[in-house]
Amino acid sequence: MHVGYLGPKNSFTYQAASYCFDSAVLTPFTSIPNCLNALKKDHIDYAIVPIENSLEGSVHTSVDGLFNQKDIQVYQEIILPIEQQLLVKNVTVIPEKILSHPQAIAQSQTFLETYYPDCLIEQVASTTFAAQYVANHPTESIAAIASKEAAEEYGLHILSRNIQDNRFNQTRFWLLGKKPLKDSLPIEKLTLFITLPNNAPGILHKVLSAFAWRSIDLSKIESRPLKTELGEYYFILDVPVTNNKDLINYALEEISLLGATIQHLGYYPIVIKER
Amino acid sequence: MHVGYLGPKNSFTYQAASYCFDSAVLTPFTSIPNCLNALKKDHIDYAIVPIENSLEGSVHTSVDGLFNQKDIQVYQEIILPIEQQLLVKNVTVIPEKILSHPQAIAQSQTFLETYYPDCLIEQVASTTFAAQYVANHPTESIAAIASKEAAEEYGLHILSRNIQDNRFNQTRFWLLGKKPLKDSLPIEKLTLFITLPNNAPGILHKVLSAFAWRSIDLSKIESRPLKTELGEYYFILDVPVTNNKDLINYALEEISLLGATIQHLGYYPIVIKER
Repeated sequence: MHVGYLGPKNSFTYQAASYCFDSAVLTPFTSIPNCLNALKKDHIDYAIVPIENSLEGSVHTSVDGLFNQKDIQVYQEIILPIEQQLLVKNVTVIPEKILSHPQAIAQSQTFLETYYPDCLIEQVASTTFAAQYVANHPTESIAAIASKEAAEEYGLHILSRNIQDNRFNQTRFWLLGKKPLKDSLPIEKLTLFITLPNNAPGILHKVLSAFAWRSIDLSKIESRPLKTELGEYYFILDVPVTNNKDLINYALEEISLLGATIQHLGYYPIVIKER
Repeated sequence: MHVGYLGPKNSFTYQAASYCFDSAVLTPFTSIPNCLNALKKDHIDYAIVPIENSLEGSVHTSVDGLFNQKDIQVYQEIILPIEQQLLVKNVTVIPEKILSHPQAIAQSQTFLETYYPDCLIEQVASTTFAAQYVANHPTESIAAIASKEAAEEYGLHILSRNIQDNRFNQTRFWLLGKKPLKDSLPIEKLTLFITLPNNAPGILHKVLSAFAWRSIDLSKIESRPLKTELGEYYFILDVPVTNNKDLINYALEEISLLGATIQHLGYYPIVIKER
């Protein structure tokens, strides 16, 4: 089996992929669109991409890349704890520049503002690239924000530990494919993309009513721009699935009758990696 | 009057700032948190930051930076057309690497996937930095995604024009401050941040009901993570204001009684810069 993931090796997505698969061939991709395209063209059997971080919110490239297509479904959700470290080559150096991926920088905003308010912050393509760069430039006064796995891989020292803004920083990843996995866990959640008809005031309220009066809980509701003009959105809804599958189907039927377009991303199980 | 904006000079935010103010002192800041902090500490009178792009959605650093504070209000919204250009120093060069800010790269995703699928894409701190870098390295096979103003400023050629994914690419900017502007335009919109009480199923539906049965339209509803754990959100609501201010106040009173916390970002006018 051939699984693509958002690389490079040792990225958080790599950790999610190796947590899911013991024996698959794991291939890194340089970007989320490249990884999703490989799955669309059947160059890989499954893809693993980040979907949402508890500090930063949805990963838009992943979510938007799955909108408006029919073939790809979610077959598993993987939740990983995300801990960021401030890494240096030489512990006696005071960093004048800190390199990392924009998401990791955003996750460490409070730490950076408190302890490194005057430091130059430079965005690079990945936390792994940042760690590698710091390892390869031992004479520069630079640091990287990256994982402890990256510290081990590139022989760096941890100058400050767990610098992310919140102890409970977690990221959700999706295992995506065109056919179900052989061994499947019990279903826990359903994700839907719902596009509302234009110029229908209060339509979101009506859509939510279809769930509310059936006591169907929603664990997430989020809007994303339709990329047409400002103020037009589609909605991402997560529905926890218990023994309410029939009720959910009735609600969806009703919502279609209201003129909304529903895209099923699939019913899927959730696995959580402990810290 | 002293106005801070997300720099550098010639950034899209700079264009929004100069469209608003003829005679103010405009000071660039290197990041949105730095700009908001300067306003909090009264080092500047007003701040202008990007809030939402029609392709990419909300600018999280701006929105989250305004959450959970009382002093700063929105006094004006500015909407600008955003057009991205592919810039080179030498028109005969075929770019092997393209540099830009992550937002500009995301806005040009379809163009890049179609015409430059194998090109290395490198994230840098700003579109202006990208343009400047290309200008300063005339022997490298590189291009920048940036504005036509940046092309003029740094003497670059436009290799491909208006490469953003959508003709109607626009960005909303907010003019933020602690006291109203002297000359104010008619109010058009209200923005609210609403935090729902924990573990209250269907509560978002109840909040929306308070607006819906009064026929108060919502032009935007979006969730942002509360940065506590996965699955806890606050909501950003935009309410177009007509002659319905009393009705809006009754709805907000009712929503408070449901146990929700409401943060007013202010009633404000909207100015739209034509293409």
